[in-house]
Amino acid sequence: MFFGSDNTGPAHPQIMQALAEANTGYATPYGADPLMEEVRTRLREIFEAPEAAVYLVATGTAANCLGLATLCPPTHTVFCSPNAHIHVDECNAPEFYTGGAKLTLVGQEDKITPEALHDAIEGEEVRGVHGPQRGPVSLTQATEFGQTYSVAEVAALCSVARDYGLPVQMDGARFANALVTANCTPAEMTWRAGVDVLSFGGTKNGCMGVEAVVLFDPAKAWEFELRRKRGAQLFSKHRYLSAQMAAYLRDDLWLSNARSANANMARLAEGLRQVPGARFAYEPAVNIAFVTLPRAVLQRLKAEGAVFNVWTGNLDKGDPEEPLLTRFVTDWSLPEAEIDRFLSLLTT
Amino acid sequence: MFFGSDNTGPAHPQIMQALAEANTGYATPYGADPLMEEVRTRLREIFEAPEAAVYLVATGTAANCLGLATLCPPTHTVFCSPNAHIHVDECNAPEFYTGGAKLTLVGQEDKITPEALHDAIEGEEVRGVHGPQRGPVSLTQATEFGQTYSVAEVAALCSVARDYGLPVQMDGARFANALVTANCTPAEMTWRAGVDVLSFGGTKNGCMGVEAVVLFDPAKAWEFELRRKRGAQLFSKHRYLSAQMAAYLRDDLWLSNARSANANMARLAEGLRQVPGARFAYEPAVNIAFVTLPRAVLQRLKAEGAVFNVWTGNLDKGDPEEPLLTRFVTDWSLPEAEIDRFLSLLTT
Amino acid sequence: MFFGSDNTGPAHPQIMQALAEANTGYATPYGADPLMEEVRTRLREIFEAPEAAVYLVATGTAANCLGLATLCPPTHTVFCSPNAHIHVDECNAPEFYTGGAKLTLVGQEDKITPEALHDAIEGEEVRGVHGPQRGPVSLTQATEFGQTYSVAEVAALCSVARDYGLPVQMDGARFANALVTANCTPAEMTWRAGVDVLSFGGTKNGCMGVEAVVLFDPAKAWEFELRRKRGAQLFSKHRYLSAQMAAYLRDDLWLSNARSANANMARLAEGLRQVPGARFAYEPAVNIAFVTLPRAVLQRLKAEGAVFNVWTGNLDKGDPEEPLLTRFVTDWSLPEAEIDRFLSLLTT
Amino acid sequence: MFFGSDNTGPAHPQIMQALAEANTGYATPYGADPLMEEVRTRLREIFEAPEAAVYLVATGTAANCLGLATLCPPTHTVFCSPNAHIHVDECNAPEFYTGGAKLTLVGQEDKITPEALHDAIEGEEVRGVHGPQRGPVSLTQATEFGQTYSVAEVAALCSVARDYGLPVQMDGARFANALVTANCTPAEMTWRAGVDVLSFGGTKNGCMGVEAVVLFDPAKAWEFELRRKRGAQLFSKHRYLSAQMAAYLRDDLWLSNARSANANMARLAEGLRQVPGARFAYEPAVNIAFVTLPRAVLQRLKAEGAVFNVWTGNLDKGDPEEPLLTRFVTDWSLPEAEIDRFLSLLTT
Repeated sequence: MFFGSDNTGPAHPQIMQALAEANTGYATPYGADPLMEEVRTRLREIFEAPEAAVYLVATGTAANCLGLATLCPPTHTVFCSPNAHIHVDECNAPEFYTGGAKLTLVGQEDKITPEALHDAIEGEEVRGVHGPQRGPVSLTQATEFGQTYSVAEVAALCSVARDYGLPVQMDGARFANALVTANCTPAEMTWRAGVDVLSFGGTKNGCMGVEAVVLFDPAKAWEFELRRKRGAQLFSKHRYLSAQMAAYLRDDLWLSNARSANANMARLAEGLRQVPGARFAYEPAVNIAFVTLPRAVLQRLKAEGAVFNVWTGNLDKGDPEEPLLTRFVTDWSLPEAEIDRFLSLLTT
Repeated sequence: MFFGSDNTGPAHPQIMQALAEANTGYATPYGADPLMEEVRTRLREIFEAPEAAVYLVATGTAANCLGLATLCPPTHTVFCSPNAHIHVDECNAPEFYTGGAKLTLVGQEDKITPEALHDAIEGEEVRGVHGPQRGPVSLTQATEFGQTYSVAEVAALCSVARDYGLPVQMDGARFANALVTANCTPAEMTWRAGVDVLSFGGTKNGCMGVEAVVLFDPAKAWEFELRRKRGAQLFSKHRYLSAQMAAYLRDDLWLSNARSANANMARLAEGLRQVPGARFAYEPAVNIAFVTLPRAVLQRLKAEGAVFNVWTGNLDKGDPEEPLLTRFVTDWSLPEAEIDRFLSLLTT
Repeated sequence: MFFGSDNTGPAHPQIMQALAEANTGYATPYGADPLMEEVRTRLREIFEAPEAAVYLVATGTAANCLGLATLCPPTHTVFCSPNAHIHVDECNAPEFYTGGAKLTLVGQEDKITPEALHDAIEGEEVRGVHGPQRGPVSLTQATEFGQTYSVAEVAALCSVARDYGLPVQMDGARFANALVTANCTPAEMTWRAGVDVLSFGGTKNGCMGVEAVVLFDPAKAWEFELRRKRGAQLFSKHRYLSAQMAAYLRDDLWLSNARSANANMARLAEGLRQVPGARFAYEPAVNIAFVTLPRAVLQRLKAEGAVFNVWTGNLDKGDPEEPLLTRFVTDWSLPEAEIDRFLSLLTT
Repeated sequence: MFFGSDNTGPAHPQIMQALAEANTGYATPYGADPLMEEVRTRLREIFEAPEAAVYLVATGTAANCLGLATLCPPTHTVFCSPNAHIHVDECNAPEFYTGGAKLTLVGQEDKITPEALHDAIEGEEVRGVHGPQRGPVSLTQATEFGQTYSVAEVAALCSVARDYGLPVQMDGARFANALVTANCTPAEMTWRAGVDVLSFGGTKNGCMGVEAVVLFDPAKAWEFELRRKRGAQLFSKHRYLSAQMAAYLRDDLWLSNARSANANMARLAEGLRQVPGARFAYEPAVNIAFVTLPRAVLQRLKAEGAVFNVWTGNLDKGDPEEPLLTRFVTDWSLPEAEIDRFLSLLTT
């Protein structure tokens, strides 16, 4: 009954199989391996972007920060949600990789609205050379709180960015989860809507540790390569990144894993919804739910072995009825029986 | 007949096996997995350093730069060989990770001598606040040109550093190769001789992609952890780093792989030595040889399928007798038959 | 009728006189001049801090950023007001000088409250190594909107910081203006209340271009010196910084200038208060007023030659009665006749 | 008898006069003052470069580093002399301002030769993405050891740079001294020969503290302005920088001061040449001489009150006949009587 995070589950067997298959003989290092060629070709097909530059790195933070660094000079500011991973969960890595750019928090909600984005952009650069300059907009798709932007929403936000000549980066650590919810093509979700650079996550969705960065405009491809090397993110035995991503894309494993993860959450959510006092912070659109539950319920679940994260407040101590905001995450690997058992505990 | 580099070979079957075994169920992310506990315990034993802080990252550049960044303020300079990987092969990553420290090249030889180190240190900080301040000394063990420092040599260099109160970092991307040559204990090669921080390589010696950083003095352990995270080098699914390193240390796989790689080079070198006109830049102490061979010989070897790197000059064009400096690297995985075939070509 | 800013007025005649007097013969460069000795001694007396390290730089941004850089590792965050000069008016200089630290905005008000500070600090570092770490608190005294913190308020804020082991930096670009309002000693306003590092402004209060940085704890003095040099902020002909600051401190010129500037604002504010529709954003405590005035009034004042900054909205176009937030700043040099004339215009 | 440095002398009376004249009433801050307009116009005339972007900062290090930062991405390397101020005397400020670029030392001589430059450039970027990329070439005119590059030499070096598509920066902290020696126009010495960005020194040649940066190609002007602000190098009371530079350019004060300084050195050198055992490291082309003199001679000079810098060795202790390399610098302000007295001491 593990709902702690989607970075704690195993790698999918097809990923492991691909690694084993890749492990024969010699392979050209640093991304010149044949599997990387397959990855590049396949991602360009998937995104209908034959010119796109495609790179692999091993962590989501690396993907985001390298992408942003090619878009944001150090005198500029990145517009992002207050909940954005780049703001709260990367220990100043974006500031590091950009050489000291700022992050401007847009609004106070999890999802950025065009109005809030407009206001945030208007609020910067009002002092000429004195303040930070307007830089890229970063969207998290899906958000850290399990919401998604529809294609229309992405397009509306990109449109605001374009009005100011600002590029758009998408943190897609859970891009697959968002996509299968949105019922659209990868191209529609990204460059057709106005996204310039995408972090295309693999790690949370069945890989061991690999993320792609897709630069839809390849003009900064070489700068990206230099920054990747300088960031100590260029793998010598690159074939093991390539093999993961290649397997992830074959047979639409990335989509089926995401569908499993989301479906697992849908079942979980249905059960949680029945708990008296349960209240969802947001309707879970992907594989994440934030829900407030009475402390006593959470204590009982924990005692039975369920793993989850209490977001605010102290699980162990206090009024049994007090509602505590709690995060549940489901990945593709969650055994059905575990969900069943968890659901049965809820109705006890 | 692949002698191109030790980062192009496969991972050892025991490494792959360990990854497969690690791939079950959930595991706490970010280095709190049980396999990491095994790694930490084992490395402390191996180095007889029960207090040492031990971390894993995925690239040698990350290991070096994070280690150096904890030792070198941005106003200081790192003393290293002109051939050091941190200087020639990391695209300014040390400057990036330290926040802009300088690298001072020590002497003009591959191996640093105590005299050259003394002179280089004396040459800096002669202008008070105006010049860069003296920072850590970085030793490459084994060197990029296949030499090693004996324990006495490491100690002598550390002694010079200590005279000036400077810490010592060791780039041990090929530490195992150096150690099996040196006939000493890991502790003797490092902290007993005066080394403060070690990059302990795995990738080039049979792993898929993992390096340990060992801080013999754990005082900066927390700073290291923050810098690793900020550097986008903290893996969520950390168990796959741990599993590699754990398997690498079990049954002394790291030592047996290194012995194989070195032995392969010994055989290769013996053969190369017979070629009329062959001249070794340095006596190969580990698994790397730099040797000058006549162009015609190299052309013939290449035509037969041998892979190696011509270091200076144009292989394809010029006087057949002109000697060209060429690098040969052997890894543990090199099939005996390939070496035999190569050797037979030499004597043709 | 110039109320545009206190950085547009002339230098005080005594400052100019001191520069002229300093301009004879040779003087040891880089801060080893005798006038710097006078400055150091005098500032230590004024602040009753015989151990304090004292340095001069030429811009307020340099003073703030060098001070903060000695207090804030690049993995940490600085807590400051949303209106802080370091956040809105330094084009990412704090991020640059700290090597990529973050700024966390405290509350939504101009002045930081202990509650808001407590909440902001609690909001950070909840994710261990993943988020930015808690770093220094920065207070602006007086604030950019013309308010001051009382000694008790400074002490209360420092007390919150101390509860978390965080150092406190004070941006005192207008420290003199705040001090003469507060009726306390410089020591009470700073280190006795818990301030660790002070930017002690001169430029806005009658100097040509000089700011002191006072490190009440000299432990990081040498690091400051290195960072100052590396920041290209160490002056070779340093005597001209020293001479300004020495004259500024002699005969309490700094206090009398600040009293003049504040008194000028008091007169101005009294007049502005009489204007129908005038509303002060804050009661002006120093030499700055933010007041909303009807567009028509502002247009008339401008037409008569008054210079001021309309903070929000378009002066030239719109409803004559619409109130526009406007900034007025008075410096020590403002001729009495100009204020009289301005006041007479108000009552026309 | 002060020959310590040209940054220890006073400002020229015309500079002080200009400051006094500028010190009336209000002036628009941050470089929008009318005197800056004069400076811009005048420098464009002087350099026959009507499109050039012109900026003022207060230190030579700031001028160099901001100029280089607009030319050198953080993944690149700057080619410079081993004696370059940016390498030995700026405490890693170039690394700081560029965001971590490297400095590659060209040859082992004070002056860079086209051959050495060619070799140094060829030596970098041989490893594709792995090593630092080739960045700007920095020339010091005049050099730290008192030599100058002729127009032909500058052109030859720029030609090598252009062959590789690399921009050229000139550190002209002593540009005026070099120019009056070279008998050419400012344009010939700079952009006509291929220089892209110039640090045009004022401080060492009679100003209080001001340097111009001239971007002959204004394409990066706005980037420069942002970097200047972010570097805390934008002065609010900018008129005092403008006033210095305006006076420096009026009536060719910059040239006459440089001629005086050089002439003073010529007289000094003539005298030094007579001393038995004297040997010049380089023929002094400007206002700096490096000469070896017997210890006993130096001791006697010092005892009589002469101030100079012994570059290598211990003045106080050792064989009286041992020759010590010593630096003498003359500025424009050196009283004739002091030189006479010094010369008379030499012949005693």
